[in-house]
Amino acid sequence: MSNSFGKLFSITSFGESHGNLIGVIIDGCPAGLAITEKDIQKELDKRKSGDNPASTTRREEDKAEVLAGIFNGYTTGAPICLVIWNTDIASSDYTKTRFLPRPGHADYPSYIKYGGFGDYRGGGRFSGRITAGFVMAGAIARKLLKLIRIEVMAYTVEIGGVVARDMGFDEIRHNIISNPLGCADDEATRRMITVIEEANKQNDSLGGIIEAVAIGLPAGIGEPVFDSLDAELAKGLFAIPAVKGLEFGIGFEAARKKGSDINDPFIIENDKMATSSNNAGGVLGGMSNGMPLIVRVAIKPTASIAKKQRTVNMKEIKNARIELKGRHDVCIVPRAVVIVESVMAITLCDFALKAGLIPRIIK
Amino acid sequence: MSNSFGKLFSITSFGESHGNLIGVIIDGCPAGLAITEKDIQKELDKRKSGDNPASTTRREEDKAEVLAGIFNGYTTGAPICLVIWNTDIASSDYTKTRFLPRPGHADYPSYIKYGGFGDYRGGGRFSGRITAGFVMAGAIARKLLKLIRIEVMAYTVEIGGVVARDMGFDEIRHNIISNPLGCADDEATRRMITVIEEANKQNDSLGGIIEAVAIGLPAGIGEPVFDSLDAELAKGLFAIPAVKGLEFGIGFEAARKKGSDINDPFIIENDKMATSSNNAGGVLGGMSNGMPLIVRVAIKPTASIAKKQRTVNMKEIKNARIELKGRHDVCIVPRAVVIVESVMAITLCDFALKAGLIPRIIK
Amino acid sequence: MSNSFGKLFSITSFGESHGNLIGVIIDGCPAGLAITEKDIQKELDKRKSGDNPASTTRREEDKAEVLAGIFNGYTTGAPICLVIWNTDIASSDYTKTRFLPRPGHADYPSYIKYGGFGDYRGGGRFSGRITAGFVMAGAIARKLLKLIRIEVMAYTVEIGGVVARDMGFDEIRHNIISNPLGCADDEATRRMITVIEEANKQNDSLGGIIEAVAIGLPAGIGEPVFDSLDAELAKGLFAIPAVKGLEFGIGFEAARKKGSDINDPFIIENDKMATSSNNAGGVLGGMSNGMPLIVRVAIKPTASIAKKQRTVNMKEIKNARIELKGRHDVCIVPRAVVIVESVMAITLCDFALKAGLIPRIIK
Amino acid sequence: MSNSFGKLFSITSFGESHGNLIGVIIDGCPAGLAITEKDIQKELDKRKSGDNPASTTRREEDKAEVLAGIFNGYTTGAPICLVIWNTDIASSDYTKTRFLPRPGHADYPSYIKYGGFGDYRGGGRFSGRITAGFVMAGAIARKLLKLIRIEVMAYTVEIGGVVARDMGFDEIRHNIISNPLGCADDEATRRMITVIEEANKQNDSLGGIIEAVAIGLPAGIGEPVFDSLDAELAKGLFAIPAVKGLEFGIGFEAARKKGSDINDPFIIENDKMATSSNNAGGVLGGMSNGMPLIVRVAIKPTASIAKKQRTVNMKEIKNARIELKGRHDVCIVPRAVVIVESVMAITLCDFALKAGLIPRIIK
Repeated sequence: MSNSFGKLFSITSFGESHGNLIGVIIDGCPAGLAITEKDIQKELDKRKSGDNPASTTRREEDKAEVLAGIFNGYTTGAPICLVIWNTDIASSDYTKTRFLPRPGHADYPSYIKYGGFGDYRGGGRFSGRITAGFVMAGAIARKLLKLIRIEVMAYTVEIGGVVARDMGFDEIRHNIISNPLGCADDEATRRMITVIEEANKQNDSLGGIIEAVAIGLPAGIGEPVFDSLDAELAKGLFAIPAVKGLEFGIGFEAARKKGSDINDPFIIENDKMATSSNNAGGVLGGMSNGMPLIVRVAIKPTASIAKKQRTVNMKEIKNARIELKGRHDVCIVPRAVVIVESVMAITLCDFALKAGLIPRIIK
Repeated sequence: MSNSFGKLFSITSFGESHGNLIGVIIDGCPAGLAITEKDIQKELDKRKSGDNPASTTRREEDKAEVLAGIFNGYTTGAPICLVIWNTDIASSDYTKTRFLPRPGHADYPSYIKYGGFGDYRGGGRFSGRITAGFVMAGAIARKLLKLIRIEVMAYTVEIGGVVARDMGFDEIRHNIISNPLGCADDEATRRMITVIEEANKQNDSLGGIIEAVAIGLPAGIGEPVFDSLDAELAKGLFAIPAVKGLEFGIGFEAARKKGSDINDPFIIENDKMATSSNNAGGVLGGMSNGMPLIVRVAIKPTASIAKKQRTVNMKEIKNARIELKGRHDVCIVPRAVVIVESVMAITLCDFALKAGLIPRIIK
Repeated sequence: MSNSFGKLFSITSFGESHGNLIGVIIDGCPAGLAITEKDIQKELDKRKSGDNPASTTRREEDKAEVLAGIFNGYTTGAPICLVIWNTDIASSDYTKTRFLPRPGHADYPSYIKYGGFGDYRGGGRFSGRITAGFVMAGAIARKLLKLIRIEVMAYTVEIGGVVARDMGFDEIRHNIISNPLGCADDEATRRMITVIEEANKQNDSLGGIIEAVAIGLPAGIGEPVFDSLDAELAKGLFAIPAVKGLEFGIGFEAARKKGSDINDPFIIENDKMATSSNNAGGVLGGMSNGMPLIVRVAIKPTASIAKKQRTVNMKEIKNARIELKGRHDVCIVPRAVVIVESVMAITLCDFALKAGLIPRIIK
Repeated sequence: MSNSFGKLFSITSFGESHGNLIGVIIDGCPAGLAITEKDIQKELDKRKSGDNPASTTRREEDKAEVLAGIFNGYTTGAPICLVIWNTDIASSDYTKTRFLPRPGHADYPSYIKYGGFGDYRGGGRFSGRITAGFVMAGAIARKLLKLIRIEVMAYTVEIGGVVARDMGFDEIRHNIISNPLGCADDEATRRMITVIEEANKQNDSLGGIIEAVAIGLPAGIGEPVFDSLDAELAKGLFAIPAVKGLEFGIGFEAARKKGSDINDPFIIENDKMATSSNNAGGVLGGMSNGMPLIVRVAIKPTASIAKKQRTVNMKEIKNARIELKGRHDVCIVPRAVVIVESVMAITLCDFALKAGLIPRIIK
């Protein structure tokens, strides 16, 4: 079950980059949720390439299709199967470089793990393309969370060393709607586009940081000690290729602060418990504390770069060079925003079901 | 099963800080592993307080006891139950502050989650004390890994803003043996001790960063896409109280680098595949790549500080102040080193069993 | 994950009787197993209707299709997705009887559980049709077991009160090949056909008993105390609609015997441990004992009968009558033989992987 | 995790027959349930030996002890650890017969599985004694079920071929209170005692059948297709040593009936849906249908008999004889009644939590 995630609201990922399809099974979705292919497509479109300056010019026209679990416009309580069919695949190139693992890619460990039987075309199971399944499942998760007034939102906070300025969630929510990089800071966006264009000219790539936030999560969500809120989110987020680190609240900065600086004092706000700061990022002892849940995810630069790179023929154990053809994303951060958001939504749905926040039947 | 972790080699945590005991069940340990209470005690002692300048002067004389699953000096294949009995507990203090959640602690969310029925004495289930169970289980995990020549090692790399210098694993292994902070850099250690002493005088606390490494892990370990090597490690590590972030390899630094800078080129070393750098931290696509697996964990400053802090009486929703009595660790990083090491060992044991690296019967 | 079964070799069932498709995901199949759609079709054909005197004359031309996880004729180690597309579906009838639960069917509890949102057409998720997914997964499981010389075989031992005579496994294996009811006793088969024809004339239905055996299972397979061999098999077999009971070895007869009658004495056979009888059915303490594993499954008569039956309109809570149209199987036992066999094969594959009997890569 | 059972309300079994203790961890019990050691002891006492004519005269004075998870008389939401300490153990005898597997016991397969490292004293992990843990967990499960008005009741319906007459649940509930065999039919009880005494004189043993019923279960409970009500119950019940078969409702009899005989017609009773018969035993399509849930469990005769039996020295592969010393239960059925009841209660608690019937906090 290593391709499944979640206990009560769980997803199972399947499909390959250049196979027939990319798919996802969602098991445990309550019956009675109104959902259409259009709802799913809307989220999926946020992931598509060609729409932002950091992305490949190749356009994937991914179309979400419901194969099971939705009937007459409502979820049935049965497993939901969503797929996108792969079309226009040119995979003849891949045989030539089959034994030349791309630096920074899963090619080498997957060759060892699966004895060379893996579908190597376009990275197969290790292509970022499989995250389209996460996004489709996320569309359903977000609809469920909306019912219980939990909002999940992700946005770009850093690309290629350019950092967006801090701002409030309302401003962020407003600004990211039309921003091409999923960033709330227009000024930083301009500089991000500049570094992206430079990296593109150099046949190179860039990484960045995505922040995701959940607003409206009541206190006490999380299942310590091992299925805690932060632990499950971390597990889910590391399923996104290119994630190399994550932190909650001030995260790594906490290592350099004093307790008196970062302990968030409790206060009364609107007759309810709150904290006057949110260095914890909304999570204490593996449970939500009622404040916005904030996680930041480090995305490494796209491993696929056009520059010639050193590698080893893994069949013959012989030094080699590899030069990747085709067009790749200079920076996947803008497209990954909706993926991070989706994984967060999926994870929180599972917790919301465990906590009894979502009814078994939506009415 | 939220208190269990691992699929084939799994641990279940139980017990409370001021209850009868702290315990752990290890299910799935192969039969035939020679193990004594002394082996377990040796690891447990590394976690004990009073031994380092950053720790409380209160000494916990935790004694590991085997209650089940080990017979005639060998594991039997049955669940192993290890406990430490809580002794000399003075918990009368806790009733006074029962409804005053300590800033930075789990008190408030756990009060909400468990409706006030939780054992609040000394943090109950949310005390760092429960990690003694992880360490006992880790002692067994490390013995198993040793059999297949996988070494797990953790060490302090930063405390209170003082950063240890980079060095090779051999030097680290040698230096940390006698270092009071679990740090390989003696010079940095001196400065760490200085900032610890300062923080102590100010009734304040400090955080830091622990790095853990696994050497000898063959390529192809990990179960993508969700039970991947980094995802499971992340999940396990977030069970350690005070962890606020983690990163593999260069981690967050990757967000600021170019692809050509961080893609680790493949090379041939001793007739085998290797990479000339290890920015990936040994993990690609959720699987090991044969290089040392490196993870860094951000530990926040101890939340318990003697300074008077603002809080809210959560029963009456009334502003209040809290002043914590008793002696607390100024910085838990040195004691957490063995905990991080243990969680890594436990996680890798599970993967090693899944991969068939460890036989079902040790002979 | 209630639509998933198995820990290391796990299947996830999806699809509905009158939806787009019936499908199954197999997660955890080792890479390198040679498998074709033809291999899968061959097993699937054993389940098809119209081939035996007990079955409906409606012919389902179910065609197995591989959507993911198999590449160039070999399993890749990625999740395998197998489907059959539903064709020629006439489901207009179902709306009329939507609120009239069929006696003996899941209609009523599923209406309550899913609040009326379930796909009611043809039983939806509760149709016997979903077992086509089990059979496709079983085809792969059997191929894996064959590699380690474990044979799984099921056969009809009773229909409508007619009991097949006891015989040895070699005789059974030979006789069932061409038997229309999957029964090894030709004489009993003739009488079974007679009672089937009589029941058919009376617009009634019949049940029966299927026995399944695994030969070649080494001793010590099973994961006590809860994931024991018999427990997991029982769990899997109860996923087959119409199963109302099961027993291992002499099963219920054991309740009427003395210990001295049924304890199987250990003997030496070909220099190996064996037992001189097999009343235990090959399982002791939840583990295989090296003798053939024998389970018998009670199948109730097809609930769908043409006779007019009493029911209640579950929306209006009003007495009603229901008369089922269309052609139904008089007795599903012959078609269920391959389903029982498949579930046994799937379950044993999971155990074989846990025990390390099947390598991670097939070479 | 093979020693764990249940998803939301889960138990983990540990301990050995002649080790320090027998224990159980209950994870997922809602906070706020009032429970005392006396409540647990009361259930445990029903399992004790020496109280019924079928049992050994050796008296086990098992005393339940709470080690974690209960605070001030209430469950805390943390894992509950319950144990009984083993006392007065005379295990010196076991070394002599260490390599002589007792016919009908787990000795041989466990020797193979655990390579001879298992604790062989008194059957170790394969002793019926571990079911004391199930009973302690069952005491908690029953209290939870009582809160939502679900009653679980088990009773002896057959011993050594003597069958109790059918009667209604009210009569059963009343009669079994003081019956020494847990049987509701006093007349049959007399005959059961006679056959038990005869078997005892012959140094032999007897089996029987236990029926368990759950009353008050609403319709729609169960998680098809694999975590169905019958499947999970079956899995749980096979963890009880000596269980060789089970059936729901009329079970195996269904195989000999016609559809028109056993389909339970729906009727209106007290303005609610019901069925006029209950051949299904309360379960349709893996879900409860609102009628009493009825399962019957076949218990084989105690494998330990004083008669000399044939066996093989499994170390030397040499024919041998074994003569078991000590006093054993002639028939374990009376003591197993509370065990069956406990497993049913545990399983139903898990379902009740999944269905949201039990709140996360008991108030």
